[in-house]
Order: sequence, then structure tokens, then C-alpha cells
Amino acid sequence: MIVNRNYFYSLLLLLSFSFSDLIAQVPEHAKPATTNINQNGCPCIFQDNRVLFTVNAPEATKVQLDLGQLYDMSKNDKGVWSVITNPQVPGFHYYSLVIDGYKFADPASESFYGTGRMASAIDIPEDGVDFYNIKDVPHGDIRSQVYFSKTTGTWRNINIYTPPGYDKNPNKDYPVLYIQHGGGEDERGWAVQGKTNFILDNLIAEGKATPMIVAIPNGNATKPGVNARGYNDEAMAVFKEELFENIIPFVENNYRVKSNAANRAISGLSMGGGQSFFTGLRNTDVFDYVGVFSTGLFGGIREQASFNAEAVIPGILTNPKSFNDNLKLFYISVGEQDNRIDPTKKMVETFKNKGLHVEFASFPGDHEWQVWRKSLHDFAQRLFK
Amino acid sequence: MIVNRNYFYSLLLLLSFSFSDLIAQVPEHAKPATTNINQNGCPCIFQDNRVLFTVNAPEATKVQLDLGQLYDMSKNDKGVWSVITNPQVPGFHYYSLVIDGYKFADPASESFYGTGRMASAIDIPEDGVDFYNIKDVPHGDIRSQVYFSKTTGTWRNINIYTPPGYDKNPNKDYPVLYIQHGGGEDERGWAVQGKTNFILDNLIAEGKATPMIVAIPNGNATKPGVNARGYNDEAMAVFKEELFENIIPFVENNYRVKSNAANRAISGLSMGGGQSFFTGLRNTDVFDYVGVFSTGLFGGIREQASFNAEAVIPGILTNPKSFNDNLKLFYISVGEQDNRIDPTKKMVETFKNKGLHVEFASFPGDHEWQVWRKSLHDFAQRLFK
Repeated sequence: MIVNRNYFYSLLLLLSFSFSDLIAQVPEHAKPATTNINQNGCPCIFQDNRVLFTVNAPEATKVQLDLGQLYDMSKNDKGVWSVITNPQVPGFHYYSLVIDGYKFADPASESFYGTGRMASAIDIPEDGVDFYNIKDVPHGDIRSQVYFSKTTGTWRNINIYTPPGYDKNPNKDYPVLYIQHGGGEDERGWAVQGKTNFILDNLIAEGKATPMIVAIPNGNATKPGVNARGYNDEAMAVFKEELFENIIPFVENNYRVKSNAANRAISGLSMGGGQSFFTGLRNTDVFDYVGVFSTGLFGGIREQASFNAEAVIPGILTNPKSFNDNLKLFYISVGEQDNRIDPTKKMVETFKNKGLHVEFASFPGDHEWQVWRKSLHDFAQRLFK
Repeated sequence: MIVNRNYFYSLLLLLSFSFSDLIAQVPEHAKPATTNINQNGCPCIFQDNRVLFTVNAPEATKVQLDLGQLYDMSKNDKGVWSVITNPQVPGFHYYSLVIDGYKFADPASESFYGTGRMASAIDIPEDGVDFYNIKDVPHGDIRSQVYFSKTTGTWRNINIYTPPGYDKNPNKDYPVLYIQHGGGEDERGWAVQGKTNFILDNLIAEGKATPMIVAIPNGNATKPGVNARGYNDEAMAVFKEELFENIIPFVENNYRVKSNAANRAISGLSMGGGQSFFTGLRNTDVFDYVGVFSTGLFGGIREQASFNAEAVIPGILTNPKSFNDNLKLFYISVGEQDNRIDPTKKMVETFKNKGLHVEFASFPGDHEWQVWRKSLHDFAQRLFK
């Protein structure tokens, strides 16, 4: 069977003006999710945060929804499969459709680079929480750029948030936060899922954050011939090299930045939290601010009870004063439903007992973006003051 | 069945350091496509441009590949489905996987907003064609911004290409090209699929294009209560209002631009070519340059033999001098395998016979991005000189 491409595009030309015909029926008291695309009515969210998902797949024999919990969908006489989920907690949840056991992204939703592929997600609004919404305040940009990495030997993408007024104040220099995504994500994580620009725009408009640049790189750097695994020395050396020899010089050569430790922060989530822990604490001459969000380093996954902070960061338990003197902020956060919370709290307690200054925060939620948006919102207010 | 999210992320944390384990076997003489993500080996392209696609779906009973032509895939004893396609023409092709008749994006490839959803695509390199590759030349930015549209009543995204040196020359003003995507696409089309930034970076480095800003808006504007369909008066009025009352003021208020007709161009592809035809030719006091790429307006789809240029653009056939005097360039292009080519050539012939100045170009290819990349590459060299 040959499908004529022109016919396909002709159809699109027509459809582009009549997409409303395609909108799935949205039940009363439900609203289309903001993560839907192309005016799709569903997924749609009920007032109690149950969500209706629909899939028009008349020929399929088994369709499921994987939203952390796996739901079987049922088919109506028009071949449309649907399910109404349990009430969802607020925030951003990756999900998949599953046909015959094969997982893929839902064409009705926006896709995001996460879980190692372009994945669907649904963003459930949280009552009274609007710090990451677009508001009528001055807006910064997210600038997509490329740089050549001498470490990886490739051109790489980086996103850079510049605060409102950056272009209109050409003599003003800014501090920089270097922020890292999690495993299976890339430089799009903080720029898209994380809503870094709107969080910073709103904080700056309220006078709660110092106007800053946020560099949002791709932390998945590899170096030919180097066996970098997990947080081993090779992996941390490659990450540091990519950051110190490529990313920071790129940012400092191309943006008007204040180039000293007092004006540099490093933070990240999950895998990026671990990278920030190692790279920040091992280089307190480079960064005065270190933020570690939801890392599994301290335990909670794979029974990492063996983590020895002193072994990887010499002096952190035996000479905390050198860290207290050289850091303005060491910040750790985690979700309250994340199984990393107990070991994280225990680690924080150990640090505090040894006299290390550490600020700890927890937020409702699992190992998900809502916690990381809140972590950034909290952390950013404490920087460069 | 409950899938624990933490387990999922723990797995990712591990995987993020060992993705090489996941790479599908790439046959000798084949190379992974540049559109693959996450170090996936396939889709992979043989030297003769046949492509191997693989899908690991052991439980599925029927898997197909829709690459314009529909291919049945076959399953091996490990549950991996595969197919080797016919040789593909160079360029960017949207494609889908199909299981049980349901089409969706391939998790092995990058997804792009096109065909009204996040769609997979494969980019087949063209021998000797590198004008859209990343090269070691000064690079501009793609800036993602938001503006509030009084027309649609919503916040909307826009991408803005700024040329190399924009930040370092704060007293220099630039001309602007306003460029429109096609049906089923949005402001990501020219920024991502179109590679506008690399095309302009390379042309500027070679001294072949005047440094310019390229505004890449979302042309799918709708206005509450207005029944805009196809190219009817209401649709063209809404598009014009969005462009003239929202987008152009946003660009001119936020960027250092030369704000006169001599320094404004409008162009677009397919649906966006039609929008540019109407809006450019009806407003020659605003734009000195009009580019129409692969529009179906002149025919080739749905037997649009009824198109009457004089009726929609009064004077275009009866008073061509007023257009010749008020436009520096009226440019039309189309793909040589696009079924729009014959009616487009006929329309160009009619224009020329009436004495209207029009530049015509055709490029090998169907109704696809490779033709539009070449159209921009050609058109951009003719602007603002």
C-alpha cells in the first residue's frame, strides 16, 4: 500500500483549519490538560484530579495507560479506548500508552525528552501554586545555542536563560546558576519541564531573586575511551571537564557574567544532584552555592547504605569548617513521598552533627518535576545575596 | 499491577551511564541516523539510503512502518521487529510506527511537532549538501520567548533567530524576516526541522546573506468567535491581525531592528506560503520581500483550478507595475516531485506574461523540509541587499 505524501499534506492543510472537529468529547466538569497539543480535548482533568485518557484505536486488542500505575483501558463501540484514573497528585507526570505491551508516547499530548526518549507527560495544576505559571511580568529568554566540546568531540546543545532586561542593559553583568537535569533527560529538562524561565521571571518580578543567568547544559557527556559509570571517578572527571573546560568558558565568553565563585552556583536533580554534590563540594573555589535536589547518592535506591561522604569529599565530616568558610550555601532538598527521603534526612543529620552548615528542604511529592520546580523556586531565592 | 516510580528512576539512573548496552546492532556499512536519540543504533542508513528500522515488541502481533510508503515489519526469535526500506531520497521525512493499525512516534527517534502531533522523523543526508550542517563558524541563537496576544487572548510562544554578533554589537540594528511554518506544524518547524539558524549562520559566515533576525512565530492563530477557514477573508484577517498587532510590535519593541518595509521580508511554506502570499502582496507598504514556498494555493491539491489571483490580490494581473514598484522581490519556489509544481509553474508563467516580476526556483524533492531548507537558503541570499 502506497500512501501519497501529497494527499497527506493536503489533508493537513484542510485539517489545520478545522482541528476543532477532532477534539474528543470533554466531559462536563473536566478540563483539557495544558500539556495537550493540537486542541485535543483529552487527556482531561476532573475537579478531583482524576484524568480521562482516550485512544482511538479500533483495531487494537489490548490498550493500557502507564502513569506509574498501569491501567487497562476499555473500548467503546466506536473503537475508542478510555480510562478514568484515580485522582492524581499535582505536578508533572511522565506517562506512556501501551499497546500489546509496547510503550510509546501519546499523540494527544506534548512530548518531552525524559526517561531516555520522547515521553508524554501530563501536568496537573496544584491549587494555590502559580509560581511557575506565565504571568504578566517582564519575561526573559531561553536561548538555544551550540558549542563544540573538546571533551566529547562533538557539537552540543545548551540552553541559557537570560533574565528580563538582559538586552536592554548592555553594561550589566550577572551571576550564573549552572543547573543539571536528571538521568534519561537532557538540556531540555530544566528549560521545558522545569519551567526555569517562568520561575525566575516571577521571582525577579517580585524582587525575591537576584537577576541571574541560568545555564542549562546537557550533562550526559561521554569521552571517547573513558569508562565512565555511575558516580565513579572517571564519570565525575568527564562531567567536570565538560563543565570546566567547555560549558563555563562558553558561557563566560558569550554572556555578560560575573566570573568568580561568589557569582557561581551549581545545582541539579537526581543524577544531576549527584553531579552537583561531587563537582560543587570538590570545587568550592569555583562555586559558592551548591544545591542537591533528590539525589539517590545518599541511599533510597539500590540500598546505597555504603555511601561514605568523607571518602568522596575528603574533610566534609572531619573538617567541616573549610566547607562552611568556602561555601555561602549548601542546600539539599527531596520529595516527601520519594523513597530517598529517609537516607537524605539521615545524611543531613550527620552533616549537621559534624558541624557542617547545610540547609534542608522537603516538598510534597515523589521523584518528580513538581518537587524540582519547588526546589529551584526555593534555592534561587537564596542565591547571590 | 503497580509500577513503582522510584524503581523506574533508579533504573534510569543506572541506564543513563550505560546506554551503550541498549544500542541495537548496527549492520556493517550502515550508520545511525542523526535524528536518533539516546544513542540508539537504529534507524540506521545504508550507503544506498535504504534504512533499517527495528522495534522491540515481542508481544505485538502486527507492526508496520509508515514512511509515506507503508511497510510490514517482520519479527525475529527475540521479538524484535525489523524492516529494510527502499532507498530513500535525501532530506527530512516524518514517519510513524504502526501497531494494530495505531500510528505513533518511534521512541528511538527524536520527535518533532508536525502532522498535528509529535511525530518521528528521519533525516537522510544529501551528498555534497552541507549548507544546513553545524559548522565551525560564528553561531547565532534561537531565542524562545512568550508574548501575550490580544488577538487570541492567550500567551503564545515565538522563536527568534538572532545572528552571530547580535549581543556584541549593541548599537547595530538588523532587518527581519518573518517566516511561517506549514499546516500541522508550529513555531518549532523552522527552528528545528528547518535548521534556520545553521542555514543563516553558514550564509552569513560566507558573506552570502546580510545578517538578519528571523522571527519564527506560530501561525495557527485563532480568534474567539471568528470562523476562519482555509484562506477565507476571516482567516487571512486573523493571521494579519496576529502578525501586525502582536508579533511585529513584539519583535520591534524587544529587538534592535530596522523598522521599515525595505528591512522586512515575509515568507513561509505550504500553508505558510499561502499566508505569506496574501499578507505580503496585500501589504507591500509593510514588506519589500515576499517568499512563497510550496503553496497549494495555485493548485495541485484538491483541484484548486479555480484560484483567481486578481480576485484575491486586486491589480496583480491588471496593474503589475504597482507591485513591481513596491516590491524588491516576489519569490516562488516548489519541489520538483511535489504535485503542486505544474500549477505553480503555470501561475508563475501567467504572472510573467502580465509583466509581474517574479523569481521562480524549484528543487529536487516532494512536499518536504529538504525543499524548504533549500528555499530558505536561496531566498535568504536575495534579501536586504
